[in-house]
Amino acid sequence: MAARRKRKAKGDPLRGRFTVEQHPALVRINRSYDVDCRMWPQDIAGSIAHAMMLGDTGIVTKAASKRMVKGLQKVAAEFADGSFEPRESDEDIHMAVERRLTELIGPDGARLHTARSRNDQVATDVRLYLASAAESIELNVQQAQRALLALVERDGAFVLPFYTHLQRAQPVVLGHGLLAYVEMLERDLQSARYELDECPLGACAGAGTSLPIDRRMTAKLLGFKRPSPNSLEAVSSRNDIARVLSGFAAIAVTLSRLGADLVLWTSSEFGFARLGDGVSTGSSIMPQKRNADGAELLRAKATRVTGALGRLFEVQRGLPMGYFKDLQEDKTALFEAEDAVEEMLEIACAMLGDISFDAARMRAAVEDPTGYLLATEAADWLVRQGVPFREAHEAVGALVSAAEAAGLGLEELPLEVFRRAHRKFDEDVYKVLSADGAVRSRRVLGGPSPAGVKRQLARWRKKLG
Amino acid sequence: MAARRKRKAKGDPLRGRFTVEQHPALVRINRSYDVDCRMWPQDIAGSIAHAMMLGDTGIVTKAASKRMVKGLQKVAAEFADGSFEPRESDEDIHMAVERRLTELIGPDGARLHTARSRNDQVATDVRLYLASAAESIELNVQQAQRALLALVERDGAFVLPFYTHLQRAQPVVLGHGLLAYVEMLERDLQSARYELDECPLGACAGAGTSLPIDRRMTAKLLGFKRPSPNSLEAVSSRNDIARVLSGFAAIAVTLSRLGADLVLWTSSEFGFARLGDGVSTGSSIMPQKRNADGAELLRAKATRVTGALGRLFEVQRGLPMGYFKDLQEDKTALFEAEDAVEEMLEIACAMLGDISFDAARMRAAVEDPTGYLLATEAADWLVRQGVPFREAHEAVGALVSAAEAAGLGLEELPLEVFRRAHRKFDEDVYKVLSADGAVRSRRVLGGPSPAGVKRQLARWRKKLG
Amino acid sequence: MAARRKRKAKGDPLRGRFTVEQHPALVRINRSYDVDCRMWPQDIAGSIAHAMMLGDTGIVTKAASKRMVKGLQKVAAEFADGSFEPRESDEDIHMAVERRLTELIGPDGARLHTARSRNDQVATDVRLYLASAAESIELNVQQAQRALLALVERDGAFVLPFYTHLQRAQPVVLGHGLLAYVEMLERDLQSARYELDECPLGACAGAGTSLPIDRRMTAKLLGFKRPSPNSLEAVSSRNDIARVLSGFAAIAVTLSRLGADLVLWTSSEFGFARLGDGVSTGSSIMPQKRNADGAELLRAKATRVTGALGRLFEVQRGLPMGYFKDLQEDKTALFEAEDAVEEMLEIACAMLGDISFDAARMRAAVEDPTGYLLATEAADWLVRQGVPFREAHEAVGALVSAAEAAGLGLEELPLEVFRRAHRKFDEDVYKVLSADGAVRSRRVLGGPSPAGVKRQLARWRKKLG
Amino acid sequence: MAARRKRKAKGDPLRGRFTVEQHPALVRINRSYDVDCRMWPQDIAGSIAHAMMLGDTGIVTKAASKRMVKGLQKVAAEFADGSFEPRESDEDIHMAVERRLTELIGPDGARLHTARSRNDQVATDVRLYLASAAESIELNVQQAQRALLALVERDGAFVLPFYTHLQRAQPVVLGHGLLAYVEMLERDLQSARYELDECPLGACAGAGTSLPIDRRMTAKLLGFKRPSPNSLEAVSSRNDIARVLSGFAAIAVTLSRLGADLVLWTSSEFGFARLGDGVSTGSSIMPQKRNADGAELLRAKATRVTGALGRLFEVQRGLPMGYFKDLQEDKTALFEAEDAVEEMLEIACAMLGDISFDAARMRAAVEDPTGYLLATEAADWLVRQGVPFREAHEAVGALVSAAEAAGLGLEELPLEVFRRAHRKFDEDVYKVLSADGAVRSRRVLGGPSPAGVKRQLARWRKKLG
Repeated sequence: MAARRKRKAKGDPLRGRFTVEQHPALVRINRSYDVDCRMWPQDIAGSIAHAMMLGDTGIVTKAASKRMVKGLQKVAAEFADGSFEPRESDEDIHMAVERRLTELIGPDGARLHTARSRNDQVATDVRLYLASAAESIELNVQQAQRALLALVERDGAFVLPFYTHLQRAQPVVLGHGLLAYVEMLERDLQSARYELDECPLGACAGAGTSLPIDRRMTAKLLGFKRPSPNSLEAVSSRNDIARVLSGFAAIAVTLSRLGADLVLWTSSEFGFARLGDGVSTGSSIMPQKRNADGAELLRAKATRVTGALGRLFEVQRGLPMGYFKDLQEDKTALFEAEDAVEEMLEIACAMLGDISFDAARMRAAVEDPTGYLLATEAADWLVRQGVPFREAHEAVGALVSAAEAAGLGLEELPLEVFRRAHRKFDEDVYKVLSADGAVRSRRVLGGPSPAGVKRQLARWRKKLG
Repeated sequence: MAARRKRKAKGDPLRGRFTVEQHPALVRINRSYDVDCRMWPQDIAGSIAHAMMLGDTGIVTKAASKRMVKGLQKVAAEFADGSFEPRESDEDIHMAVERRLTELIGPDGARLHTARSRNDQVATDVRLYLASAAESIELNVQQAQRALLALVERDGAFVLPFYTHLQRAQPVVLGHGLLAYVEMLERDLQSARYELDECPLGACAGAGTSLPIDRRMTAKLLGFKRPSPNSLEAVSSRNDIARVLSGFAAIAVTLSRLGADLVLWTSSEFGFARLGDGVSTGSSIMPQKRNADGAELLRAKATRVTGALGRLFEVQRGLPMGYFKDLQEDKTALFEAEDAVEEMLEIACAMLGDISFDAARMRAAVEDPTGYLLATEAADWLVRQGVPFREAHEAVGALVSAAEAAGLGLEELPLEVFRRAHRKFDEDVYKVLSADGAVRSRRVLGGPSPAGVKRQLARWRKKLG
Repeated sequence: MAARRKRKAKGDPLRGRFTVEQHPALVRINRSYDVDCRMWPQDIAGSIAHAMMLGDTGIVTKAASKRMVKGLQKVAAEFADGSFEPRESDEDIHMAVERRLTELIGPDGARLHTARSRNDQVATDVRLYLASAAESIELNVQQAQRALLALVERDGAFVLPFYTHLQRAQPVVLGHGLLAYVEMLERDLQSARYELDECPLGACAGAGTSLPIDRRMTAKLLGFKRPSPNSLEAVSSRNDIARVLSGFAAIAVTLSRLGADLVLWTSSEFGFARLGDGVSTGSSIMPQKRNADGAELLRAKATRVTGALGRLFEVQRGLPMGYFKDLQEDKTALFEAEDAVEEMLEIACAMLGDISFDAARMRAAVEDPTGYLLATEAADWLVRQGVPFREAHEAVGALVSAAEAAGLGLEELPLEVFRRAHRKFDEDVYKVLSADGAVRSRRVLGGPSPAGVKRQLARWRKKLG
Repeated sequence: MAARRKRKAKGDPLRGRFTVEQHPALVRINRSYDVDCRMWPQDIAGSIAHAMMLGDTGIVTKAASKRMVKGLQKVAAEFADGSFEPRESDEDIHMAVERRLTELIGPDGARLHTARSRNDQVATDVRLYLASAAESIELNVQQAQRALLALVERDGAFVLPFYTHLQRAQPVVLGHGLLAYVEMLERDLQSARYELDECPLGACAGAGTSLPIDRRMTAKLLGFKRPSPNSLEAVSSRNDIARVLSGFAAIAVTLSRLGADLVLWTSSEFGFARLGDGVSTGSSIMPQKRNADGAELLRAKATRVTGALGRLFEVQRGLPMGYFKDLQEDKTALFEAEDAVEEMLEIACAMLGDISFDAARMRAAVEDPTGYLLATEAADWLVRQGVPFREAHEAVGALVSAAEAAGLGLEELPLEVFRRAHRKFDEDVYKVLSADGAVRSRRVLGGPSPAGVKRQLARWRKKLG
């Protein structure tokens, strides 16, 4: 149970006409400092821009403006070196910064909130934060992409099955499979980018102000393209955050799939990969265990990100236009998603940096004669002889049945069996029935041939440096 | 209970080596024709491009290619005029089209699926569909925006309170509030747009093909910028759909908020608006009722869209790389979201097209002397006299307390009471204490002044024609 | 685009004082007949009980009451034999039944809705439906449990690894693993049961009625324990549905896990099981494929059920007390969840009824010397000699390392290596190092020993007949 | 960025055969101590029961058992008085307790984990915790119910409209509306209860143990009814938590609706209620504001609970049988939901304890002549004269139209207008056209008559003491 905190109505800048202390339950549920204090750089940057504008427009004196800016820089320094001391009465990061500023510079601190409301202040802070979070995620995704590329370079030529429905389908090279993740992450990143466009600052509580502020100046100082065109919209919507979170969710889902592959690959049954000791875990009871906890958590933690996105939408759903306290939940959603993705990227990079692949096990899975991974090659061979695809598909289906019944691989069947399946078969067909041949022949753009993979790799190396 | 459908293994193009009929439960759960048949235009367009390419590259003869194209056009015509007859054995739209094609043109139909799999086919269909759905939603959002603009033109100058926390905050004009929705929808639309960039066709099951297809040609024919660079990625990820659905979800959430406003505005307590009889509903028991069912459903139906997005992410989460049948659920999610948003836009336009506003009720809400909507004006007046904002805020807080205790409006208080709250007050303050004055004075960019609203309206009229 | 439907205001029982036709968009979004018509048995049962009560209390004449009951029975017969013809103007099942009743019996039909509102009517219908849906799901879950028991009987003694983290952990018998699903489903069922307790009928729109109805009578006639104690609550909450849906979600999640096991077991890498041809699917391109689509859909369709539950909660969240049209979405959620679970149970039963297990592959996975599944046996052996568990755990960890380095199984290591790991080891330890011995020795209650499994099976056979 | 923590492989009880330090990213993502330390009472209780059983069965000596029990009690005392010092190397609460125990009692501490795994340990801890959390929530829900009952006692007789579709429907008394919440919470509680039935302890990693443990003893000592019947099920499923969370979600959704009512009631437009200063908040810019932040957060925080439930299901969905690290996310979901509901109940009680109602505003809303809340009374009056309900409904609809056109209330219309609407009307009808009369006449069981509300209140007072 949290200790009951007392809060004096007297002197509390928000409780103007109230004469009674706030109920501790309200203090507790309302206080967001522990959540939003991570936005201190954005909050102070926003306040500095605002203070400069107040001076520039003559709403406060140049001297007062300068004192505010200097004071805010001092507050920022305190946050940066860890010496900032929050008080229990600091409801949120915004009140904490202003409270400290007033302690440092005296009465001019009380001028900072002129022509501003927490509504536009928080909307501005969040967009600034969003841009910075998106950039940080992007850099870390690129780290994961580089880790994948390093593996492509090292082991990219290993032949293994690719799977559909978890059934072995056709031979590919490992590099092709790893590059698929690089590409998926790239597309996901496109959704996760955030450019500062419309600056909410100056929307005040939602109806602007009659004081002669200069919204273009603050927008420009903070790196936005322009002021937001409607003050009500500016404080009401959190769909910007949702847009970025949907990108984060896409990244998380892709990482969850990588996690699923790592779990499979490191199982005894697949045996394609082995994680290093440093990224493996043991069991509290079974001394032999070598678990891929990190990979499992990639699957599970992704639910935090998709869940946060859902929550962000739901919090807004059904709210009338205007600012509502419900929107306070936007930040818990954003930060939970951000932290989960960062954590996931960190563990993914660690695992990708300490994994070895077992070329022999992979090849054995491809060459298992009863896997029939080359059936499509036989069908395509028939197509090249002019046989309609569906006919070829059916013929090879029959061939596989025959081979299965005999417990043999396709390549082990005598030509007469081939002939019985389709009269167009001749000796030549055996030439395409090899894993390496099959892989090499798939020279199609985007395909899994070693040459194609090399081209993809080169392109990515250039891109990611 | 659905009637048990029989399915002959014999002649079924997918059941190659199976000798037993499919279990009716599998037939039932697997069959997606009723869901995906709406993609017939995309499926046939994709097949036509594929058939042209097969002829162009010599994989089939020019004559066969032409027959396929002509046949496909005939199938399209059947869909268009409603004469296409699906069979119970048509598992999905892809098999239905190919089945019908083969009926129409004979053996060449069996060549269509050469160098193609349903995996790349469906990925291509879905992206084509996505682009078309996004465009359709965009047009309908613009209809809703136009409906809002028409109201701004007609009644945009009415003065009403804007609300934060559902408490009256400050006076604005109605046009400002309606334009906020126009802006929100515009930002939402940015997330909902979809441009065809990477074409999956040619990825086949995920490992490409050894046949000499030309992926650049099909990509170009279908309006994509280029072939997708990795065949595995091309068939594995549905995050493209998620990106668009997150835009749809944003639109739906914005419409749900408009719905919430309509429910409030048409309540007796607010009394700001009245929906026409054509968009009002009665009660099965209370003869006097005039309900805004449509507005309520805007709130509730939005959960379908946010839910579909969540489901789309979850279906993919934890899947290894490759194609899995799980991904079949992508389309139910996409279509459910699309239908819900279309339905919501339709009813929103209907309501916005048949609503009247009660200027007197709105103004009364602003001018209610005990609402103190002009308190901020008084505080800003003090700020303009050089009083620090926090000091002004506290002084006006005390003033409101005094007025409340006396049951008077601020403007009804004698000057001496103002003076007691802050010694800087003088007669001039009464000039800013009027709703119209307050609105007019908020000339700030993006603010609610009539002049500002006119500028916003002009910009939008130009944009939306 | 749906055809625009015309609706005459004239004669529409709900549009009392409205003089204008309803806008087609409103007709479309408001009409729920296609969704709720499946509740016809419940709706008619409720109406019959209501009509009987109206007669019994003298609110209508006995004769009128009898005519209504007879007429309603006729309507029910029409639904049952498929001859009922809905009209476009039937907004929902309730209006459709009353409309048809009035056609059949004339003016007395117009007396049915006396002292009733659609609000209490639909709340009653839904609870009756819920009870019936829960019962149907229960019967089908029991079918799935029986299918599992049949497999336990047939192949329950096969030895295979159980897995934690998808790493082979210890040997168990297959029966143990299958019975785990039987138990999980049983616990899930506990959440999915629904008993009729409080009957909403008589709550009317939410404020009861001044007519002298007998709520105890209708409650009893319909099988409820008592009338609901508060008329407002009775029409406002849908949390009853949520309770049952959370049980359905639990069942769906358990089935999704069974699906995941089936996908793994039928992979080439595991090779533990093979689905019959009738429940396997082929590929449109790869002739050799034998996919477990049904098992994959068990995973994916579960998202519909969890999603429906989430949607049901969200639709209610933030609604004030009272009936709102938002609640119309309760039924789409309920029916979607119900249908998905029914479909999942059907396919699960089909697959469990046509699966064979490969005892040799399972045993090989257990006995793979480098799997070290018996490491815990060695540790427990040490514990039995008085060695503290952590010390034993560490010693066997070292032993596994030594064995791994040598490429040998534990049982292949010479005693001196054991001794080096821990001096308490002696010859006896080799006796516990066998899979069969390990399984047999786990006689603990609930454990995987063949004897324990037999006991569990017997208990279940008795329970499920 | 969290400081990189070093972790020695040496001496770490879980890293048996690993020779390399764990990667800091793995340490970080894997460590759950900060989350699960709140389960210390349950973890230690479970360990004490286990230690007693180990002694009782002779698996360890009686003396060792006693030392363990004493040591564990000492650890518990340290947690209770806040002196327990976790180490960075304590991965979770389980390892922390065992580590400390071993420090306190030496080598016997290493015997505690005999015949136990963290898998069954955590499953047991969570069920114990669940029972305790459910009980705590129940007590707090009862507090909220009592707060509602106190308001019913004080102001329950005030007359106000009840709403459907947010349109005034019929007059009720406030007590009826507040009791509806009492009833809804009661039904929700039914889903949120958790009784300890099957004890997982002894399932070990999932395959039981060969050591002669006594599961019945530990189950009984911990308050369970019996040991769980299948060791694999015992460690695999988290649907028990989901069951309780669905109850928590129901409570949260009901509270969110109360929040919505409070927001409406305290708006200027409704004006039905006023929250005390202690539970109201001000604005950073508008000195007059009196916001119901707590009520808004009731709406928004409910998304945490519904979200946690969704996440709990999703984390399990698609996992094969057995324990997976994914399940670690169960506790974050449980604790997040529990904390949110506790916080919501606390603020709800605070607001209900400091609210005043405005009887005059409520009555004015009922008696507003143009609200036509008594239309149903007029219709029911006709029904009592033998007019079929639909005919009466239509007649009164016409009457409302006429009254609306004339700007009059129903009761203000002359009898001839009534007669024109329906010839059966006579002077008597005016008697039912009063709010108080209407409310009093609704004597139906569960209805809003003052007498009925008194009976409900008495029943609840007896129940809740």
